[in-house]
Amino acid sequence: MPRWALGRLCDLMVEIVRIQETDSPALRPAAVVVLAGDHGIASEGVSAYPSEITGLMVANFLRGGAAISLLAKQHRLPLRVVDMGTATAEVVPGALSVRLAKGTKSFLDRQAMSLETATEAVAIGRQLLDRLAIDPGTSTLLLGEMGIGNTTSSAALAALLLDRDPADLVGRGTLIDEATLAKKIDVVRRAVTLHAQAREPLEVLAAVGGFELAGMVGMMLEAAERGRLLLLDGFPASVAALVASRIDPGVRDVCIASHRSAEPGHDVVLEALGLVPVVEMRMRLGEASGAALAWPLLESAVMLYREMATFDDLAQ
Amino acid sequence: MPRWALGRLCDLMVEIVRIQETDSPALRPAAVVVLAGDHGIASEGVSAYPSEITGLMVANFLRGGAAISLLAKQHRLPLRVVDMGTATAEVVPGALSVRLAKGTKSFLDRQAMSLETATEAVAIGRQLLDRLAIDPGTSTLLLGEMGIGNTTSSAALAALLLDRDPADLVGRGTLIDEATLAKKIDVVRRAVTLHAQAREPLEVLAAVGGFELAGMVGMMLEAAERGRLLLLDGFPASVAALVASRIDPGVRDVCIASHRSAEPGHDVVLEALGLVPVVEMRMRLGEASGAALAWPLLESAVMLYREMATFDDLAQ
Repeated sequence: MPRWALGRLCDLMVEIVRIQETDSPALRPAAVVVLAGDHGIASEGVSAYPSEITGLMVANFLRGGAAISLLAKQHRLPLRVVDMGTATAEVVPGALSVRLAKGTKSFLDRQAMSLETATEAVAIGRQLLDRLAIDPGTSTLLLGEMGIGNTTSSAALAALLLDRDPADLVGRGTLIDEATLAKKIDVVRRAVTLHAQAREPLEVLAAVGGFELAGMVGMMLEAAERGRLLLLDGFPASVAALVASRIDPGVRDVCIASHRSAEPGHDVVLEALGLVPVVEMRMRLGEASGAALAWPLLESAVMLYREMATFDDLAQ
Repeated sequence: MPRWALGRLCDLMVEIVRIQETDSPALRPAAVVVLAGDHGIASEGVSAYPSEITGLMVANFLRGGAAISLLAKQHRLPLRVVDMGTATAEVVPGALSVRLAKGTKSFLDRQAMSLETATEAVAIGRQLLDRLAIDPGTSTLLLGEMGIGNTTSSAALAALLLDRDPADLVGRGTLIDEATLAKKIDVVRRAVTLHAQAREPLEVLAAVGGFELAGMVGMMLEAAERGRLLLLDGFPASVAALVASRIDPGVRDVCIASHRSAEPGHDVVLEALGLVPVVEMRMRLGEASGAALAWPLLESAVMLYREMATFDDLAQ
């Protein structure tokens, strides 16, 4: 069974073996972690849905009715939800609440959060691997997010970090109309101008980021230090990986991009990270659904590697 | 949960519901069927491997050591292997043997098989759904093949049926070198000239086809009549679907393309069929491995459809 026969699946094998630094790769124990947070920028009318949806979806994840609940169950993956800062009145039962505030501030007026808060959110994120009720030896994290307004925040983060025109990065999120899209691009342009002085990754995160994104950055930094494999979900998760990689380039090296979403910014960020997604389904759901969808393909890659590793060409 | 959020996954849901003509789609019972056959054209030196490999791989499928054996096991799919006409000395234990001959003739000298034999091979293929030890109510067939030389045969079939330049259809198969590729293109060009009078799909199949491809055509015709879903594997399986669709256009309507292989002809044939593959992994292995790899994504689509079908937008 020659190596070329498996194409991209063989690339995946090589990636996983490299990340895990072992000839006996194993993806499990694994866990899906969805981080949630609300965004002050949502008040600017950049989204098709109000901030209340964030908390409702968090509850839906835990009730088992959301796509990620069903996909996690399909693949026997534990699902953990972290409330990093939603605007819900009460904490959703079952979610780990480490709420920094009831959503960020609108970053058209000021920073989304203070530098201190961003630093704290990243520090909390770093602790999540231990604070979540998941196996301490968890090999793989499937990371996703929920937060109305977070594709706007993600586009602003990417625009500042990559020095790219917001028009290349802003997409339809939860399918906004043309007028809202134009407004969203304008909002990100104004944000980029307002926060142009932000240079360091944590400064940029404080300026236009979100709590769930900052938490994810922290999780990624910790996971990279521990050599865990990160299976990234969509645009916001990839932007978090970009921020984290600017803090510690080692983060990039433990990431695998699960899918390519319909958000144009996702393309740009994946390219900046040098990541090629496993599947291309034009999903735009977030909540780690793309990561969970791609999961069995990684399992196939590892299984074939382990079972077929004696073939000369494959072991090359 | 709006429909757009699932992108291509939603398209898949719609496809499966359409094919099964039910609001309660179910992919199982399902079975992987790999049809094997040898090709006289292999004697022209168009392949990196000799015809003996076909029989050895058939044995490997059944011993559990091949990629398809492992992938079928991963997804709890029964695997059936049919020897439609390999050149092995003896029948491989465990394979259903309906051998028409020990391989086809080289189609540079004459027809690969007579029209009678092609007709018989298709008829045998039609019976396979009942002759294979699979659930009579099998909903989904994952169809693949094994046959050294069969990408050459497939390219010739596609060139004749689509009136395309062989250079657009011939690829590296099991990774032949430049010189062999040039020879392979030349062989297909000569075959197209020699068999230019073949017009009807069965005539084309007899002229340049193979036993495993003819058997697959028969299976497809029967499956379409019974409303079974066909999950196509790579280039040869897609060419078989093309031939079958020329006999009964209803075949196309029950097909889902699992993956896009690295064979250039696969692209051309998928486009001719109007099929968009589920995954793009540049695999070139055959043996239904691409279909098995894509399988869990179809399972996700059906599962999400069933569990989330009450949402207005999704049910649209």
